[in-house]
Amino acid sequence: MAERFEIVEKALLKMLEEKKYATLRDILVTMNPMDVAGVFLGLEEKQIPLMFRLLPKELAAETFVEMDPDAQELLIRGFSDNELKEVLDELYVDDAADIVEEMPANVVKRILRQADPELRSSINQILRYPEYSAGSIMTTEYVSLGPQMTVEEAILRIRRQGVDKETIYTCYVLDKDRTLLGMVTVKDLLLAADDETQIGQMMERNIISVTTLDDQEKVAHTLSKYNFLALPVVDGENRMVGIVTFDDAMDVMEEEATEDMELMSAMTPSEKTYLKSSALDLFKNRIPWLMLLMVSATFTGLIITSFEDSLAAQVALTAFIPMLMGTGGNSGSQSSVTVIRSLSLGELHFRDAGTVLWKELQTAVLCGLTLAAVCFAKIWLIDRLLMGNPSITVMVDLVVCLALAVTVVLAKMVGGLLPMAAKAMHLDPAVMASPFISTIVDALSLLVYFLFAKMLLGV
Amino acid sequence: MAERFEIVEKALLKMLEEKKYATLRDILVTMNPMDVAGVFLGLEEKQIPLMFRLLPKELAAETFVEMDPDAQELLIRGFSDNELKEVLDELYVDDAADIVEEMPANVVKRILRQADPELRSSINQILRYPEYSAGSIMTTEYVSLGPQMTVEEAILRIRRQGVDKETIYTCYVLDKDRTLLGMVTVKDLLLAADDETQIGQMMERNIISVTTLDDQEKVAHTLSKYNFLALPVVDGENRMVGIVTFDDAMDVMEEEATEDMELMSAMTPSEKTYLKSSALDLFKNRIPWLMLLMVSATFTGLIITSFEDSLAAQVALTAFIPMLMGTGGNSGSQSSVTVIRSLSLGELHFRDAGTVLWKELQTAVLCGLTLAAVCFAKIWLIDRLLMGNPSITVMVDLVVCLALAVTVVLAKMVGGLLPMAAKAMHLDPAVMASPFISTIVDALSLLVYFLFAKMLLGV
Repeated sequence: MAERFEIVEKALLKMLEEKKYATLRDILVTMNPMDVAGVFLGLEEKQIPLMFRLLPKELAAETFVEMDPDAQELLIRGFSDNELKEVLDELYVDDAADIVEEMPANVVKRILRQADPELRSSINQILRYPEYSAGSIMTTEYVSLGPQMTVEEAILRIRRQGVDKETIYTCYVLDKDRTLLGMVTVKDLLLAADDETQIGQMMERNIISVTTLDDQEKVAHTLSKYNFLALPVVDGENRMVGIVTFDDAMDVMEEEATEDMELMSAMTPSEKTYLKSSALDLFKNRIPWLMLLMVSATFTGLIITSFEDSLAAQVALTAFIPMLMGTGGNSGSQSSVTVIRSLSLGELHFRDAGTVLWKELQTAVLCGLTLAAVCFAKIWLIDRLLMGNPSITVMVDLVVCLALAVTVVLAKMVGGLLPMAAKAMHLDPAVMASPFISTIVDALSLLVYFLFAKMLLGV
Repeated sequence: MAERFEIVEKALLKMLEEKKYATLRDILVTMNPMDVAGVFLGLEEKQIPLMFRLLPKELAAETFVEMDPDAQELLIRGFSDNELKEVLDELYVDDAADIVEEMPANVVKRILRQADPELRSSINQILRYPEYSAGSIMTTEYVSLGPQMTVEEAILRIRRQGVDKETIYTCYVLDKDRTLLGMVTVKDLLLAADDETQIGQMMERNIISVTTLDDQEKVAHTLSKYNFLALPVVDGENRMVGIVTFDDAMDVMEEEATEDMELMSAMTPSEKTYLKSSALDLFKNRIPWLMLLMVSATFTGLIITSFEDSLAAQVALTAFIPMLMGTGGNSGSQSSVTVIRSLSLGELHFRDAGTVLWKELQTAVLCGLTLAAVCFAKIWLIDRLLMGNPSITVMVDLVVCLALAVTVVLAKMVGGLLPMAAKAMHLDPAVMASPFISTIVDALSLLVYFLFAKMLLGV
């Protein structure tokens, strides 16, 4: 599909260059706004306003929402007050708030001046909520019904008000002070046997809602768990203030998974896509963690230095350090990533810490013993017999494999428990992933290794 | 919320034990099916059929869908033919197909015998598609309209047919041989100015669809990209066969992100949740990769052994091996995870390989130089002056930092390019993540290190 789309894109750019505006417009109007926005990505700065003005009003606004912030800013700066007002009138409130958030202060001022008073106050309301909260991603436009209305009246109200609402399919039943009483779906209304039934009689009263300050991740998981099209957002007194729709929840889910993966591999999460990030952006997200982990590796260096004499006495020991630390790191990151993901999907909670400890311990013992047995045979067969290294004795082999087994167990304990501890301290468990755990496990594995060497080899 | 729910759960279990069935039922009927299914998780085997029979028919079926396969199997085995038929009648086709997939053969036979012929043939159709394909996650129940129908006729048809459809909000316009012509939403229909308008006149003709054999990940990303409630699934001749709804797409997105994280941290992906997995399950998913990576660390061991004399001549060099390999591994995994995630979100394609190479090279040079400079100062200040290690000379420090800079650059190149290469070979890029790349980078970093040592220290 991506390839087919590229061919269309190239044809459209050619038409723009050849000034075949009528044909260009005829094709653009048949396209999805998301794809039209994609075409804009390939344009030069001066072509953007030119092509944008070819779009009919509604498609223009729908496309505008999907464009990247740089192009949006460029267009707004070029708009007349009237053009700006026209685009703003077509936007949903949450999209308008998203755009305002991305713009520099002087552009924001112009937007708020051109927005009608209702839109302006809604945008301001949404912007007041903390970043990543339910309030900051909700829209304040939804269909509200009264409990006394009949099915017929409700349908009439939807037909009158629906055009401006992001979704009409879930309607919320509110009393006079906007307390959330229940909900009905358009499906319920259309399939109702009797048009005279009162909404209060047929509404679903067991409402699942979130509050304005709930984390966006919780919102997305709740919506996904219950398969809802939209989730109502209420304030501290159960008064309805907005809804979050499934499409915004999907974006949150993607963002949060990306963020977790970035944290897990020692990067500062960024909202820019890879292709949009400059090398300097990438450098800034990556260098602090690399630096931190590099400096903390000083400990492993010190451990090796303090056992220098042992290593000198048994030269063969050095060769197994990378294998030992690598296997420890991999074992630990397996456990930590599993636990981090289960925590973030809400499948695991802090109260399960005992279960995690026990499960990881059993798994670790199984893994540790298996690896140690295979490693013992491998060292003997490959390193001693095949490579003919005489400094590898049975005792050296034993020291390596005992250290390996203990390291794997320690690594899985640390990997399983640190994310749980982070959760208990209200930190993001994802920062406790492989790089962090590897650093701890590296030091532990060396200590165990040299301890066994001292005990069994007397070095 | 989780805590509040636990209290309710305990109260319900108490009622069941005290045989207060009427009260129990009164509370259960107010609950969301998803939460009722949650209560069943806490029941003993013999209590499950008892509580299930308390549920009214519709809630029972909705709860049944959300229960875990073990409980479903237990219930089906206990159902009379009539009870089984009643539950099956209430299920959506895609849910029925999911259940059938999880059951042992004799239970499947009973289900298909009790299903009405239409349901039976739909289940069989869905099960015929390959796992993880659009066909395997679609439902065959959707509202279809003809292009000649008027708005009024369309609404009437929805009201008559809607009760059995998973979504009524997006309706598909088909011609006589089921070719997909266009779509209309219930919003369009309700807001239409004139009830006599023909569907063919108002439908959206620019349809975005997937084919039955498309990967489920593509389906989820397409649906999320365009913010669709449902996506039509067509066969090779553009004939409509089903739809995938947003809630199934959300589940796919979560599954795929989890799978990527598991692959990235060297585990075989599993569909079982952490708490449902036994230690033996976890062992089986983890041990093959640990074993593979352990054995491949033989190379790093061999490299160290072959430079044994150099290490013996300059004992200080050994202490920096963990720092060097750790920083290399972290640098590589930063790049690989970023690229893997961008590939899987469709933000990056194989054709961007040149861009990735150039961006990673610039970032790597920035990171490598910064780290080398800081490392040089750190080694001198801490290891030489503070710890008073006389074997660390300026040349030793220089060798370590030069090796570090080169390692970081190599690691980021390998980390950025291997996932692209995997994509080009139609492998899952996620298998090319940190553990795999660390193993390569470990060997490279040691080679570079010893090469510099030979050149600059003459050892």
